[in-house]
Amino acid sequence: MDYELYYWPNIPGRGEFIRLALEEAGAGYIDVARSHKKGQGVQALTALLTGEDVQHPSFAPPFLRHGDLLIGQTAAILTYLGARHGLAPEDEAGRLWTHQLQLTIADLVVEAHDTHHPISSTLYYEEQKAEAQRRAAIFRTARIPKFLGWFETVLNRNPAGPHHLVGDAATYAELSLFQVIEGLRYAFPRAMARTLGEFPRVADLSCAVADRPRISAYLASPRRMAFNEHSIFRHYPELDG
Amino acid sequence: MDYELYYWPNIPGRGEFIRLALEEAGAGYIDVARSHKKGQGVQALTALLTGEDVQHPSFAPPFLRHGDLLIGQTAAILTYLGARHGLAPEDEAGRLWTHQLQLTIADLVVEAHDTHHPISSTLYYEEQKAEAQRRAAIFRTARIPKFLGWFETVLNRNPAGPHHLVGDAATYAELSLFQVIEGLRYAFPRAMARTLGEFPRVADLSCAVADRPRISAYLASPRRMAFNEHSIFRHYPELDG
Repeated sequence: MDYELYYWPNIPGRGEFIRLALEEAGAGYIDVARSHKKGQGVQALTALLTGEDVQHPSFAPPFLRHGDLLIGQTAAILTYLGARHGLAPEDEAGRLWTHQLQLTIADLVVEAHDTHHPISSTLYYEEQKAEAQRRAAIFRTARIPKFLGWFETVLNRNPAGPHHLVGDAATYAELSLFQVIEGLRYAFPRAMARTLGEFPRVADLSCAVADRPRISAYLASPRRMAFNEHSIFRHYPELDG
Repeated sequence: MDYELYYWPNIPGRGEFIRLALEEAGAGYIDVARSHKKGQGVQALTALLTGEDVQHPSFAPPFLRHGDLLIGQTAAILTYLGARHGLAPEDEAGRLWTHQLQLTIADLVVEAHDTHHPISSTLYYEEQKAEAQRRAAIFRTARIPKFLGWFETVLNRNPAGPHHLVGDAATYAELSLFQVIEGLRYAFPRAMARTLGEFPRVADLSCAVADRPRISAYLASPRRMAFNEHSIFRHYPELDG
C-alpha cells in the first residue's frame, strides 16, 4: 500500500523532510497535492485539512496517510517511517536520540524561516524587511554556528564514528540535516561559505547523504523541487552576510 | 529509581511541561538545578550540557536522566514518560496522535515566546520592543484563535467525548495544553478574557486539568513556580490587547 504525502505543491518546505525519508526507504508514495489525477491535487489536501469529518485533522501540512492512519507534524511522521523502514535504531535509547536530533533540526528550521518572517507569516516579506535584517544578522553570526557546532559535537561523540549521527547507519535525522544544510547554503551562500568550513564533519555528512544511491537518483529526478522564495529557505541577498 | 529533571532553576519555561507529567504520574523525581544538595544545583545541569564526555548532549534544557538514558527535547521526554506512566495510549495510532498534539503545542509555545523576542533571545526585550508590539498584535488576534480553534475542533471530534484530547483519559498533551492556557492568560490577560470564551471545550479542559487531584496538590505546593518575566510567557501590558 502506497503512502500518501500531503504537502503544498510548489514549495519544498517541510514536505521535503518526508520525501527524503520515503525516497531513501525506496517506499512507494503519492505526492498527492502535486498529482493531476482525479481525486488528487491540492483539493485533496484541503479536504483533509478542513473537512468536518476528519477525526485527526492536522494543524498544517505536511501530513501522511497510510491505511487508516493520518499523521501530521514532520517529526511525528518521521518516527513512523523511521520505525517501518530501518531509518532509526530499534532500541528505545537509539530511537529517542534520533528523535531528539530531529526535534532540534525542527527548531533550527523555525529559526531559519523566521529570518525572513520575524513578525508574521501573514505579512509579506517586504512588510517586515527591516526586522528581517536584524534577525538574519544574529541568525547568521550566532545561531547557525551554535546549531552546526552542536551537530559537529554529536558526530564527534558518536561511538560508531563521525560518519553518521546515530550508530553506523543512516537515519531520518541525517537526511533532514542534509536538507537543512542545503537550504542554508541556498539562503545564505556567503555566510555559509565562511561558516560551513568550521564544521567539517557536518559538511562531510551532508555530502555523503547526497551521494547515497537512492538520494542521488532522487535529487536528479523531477520529483526534487528547487528551493524558492516562497518556502522556508529563501535567498534574499540583503539577508546574507 | 527517581527521574532527574534538568531545567533552569528560576523559570517555569519548558521544564514545566515535564514537571506536570511527572506530577500527574506520581513519579519520584529530583528537580536537579533547583536542589541545594551536594552534586546537584545548576552546576550539575551545566556539566551535562557542556561536559565533553556526555555522549548524548542536549542542545538546550530541559533534559531528563533516568538510569543510563539522557533524553532532551520536551516532546521526546514526554513520549518516554507517556509510555511508562499511562499518559498516552498504548496503540500506535493513539500514541502518534498524542505526539502530534504535543508538537503542535510546541509550535504555539515558540510563537508565544517570540512575541517578546521576535529578533533574538540574545537581545533584551527593550531592544526589540517595537518589533514585539507588531508581532504580539498578530499573535493575539490571529494565532491564538487559530491554535485554540484547532484544539476546540480536536475536542469536538474526539469519539470518546470532548472532555479529553485523546480517548477517555488524560494524556501528557492535555497537561501541556493546560500549561499553555495558563501561560497565555498570564501573558495576555485582556486578550484571553475576550478570546477564551470562544473556545469553551478548551477552557473546560484546562479547568479540569487544574482540578485533577495530583495536579491540584502540585499547583498548591512550593514545587510549582509562578510565571515571570524571564520565561516563555511574560506579562508586558503593552503587548496585551
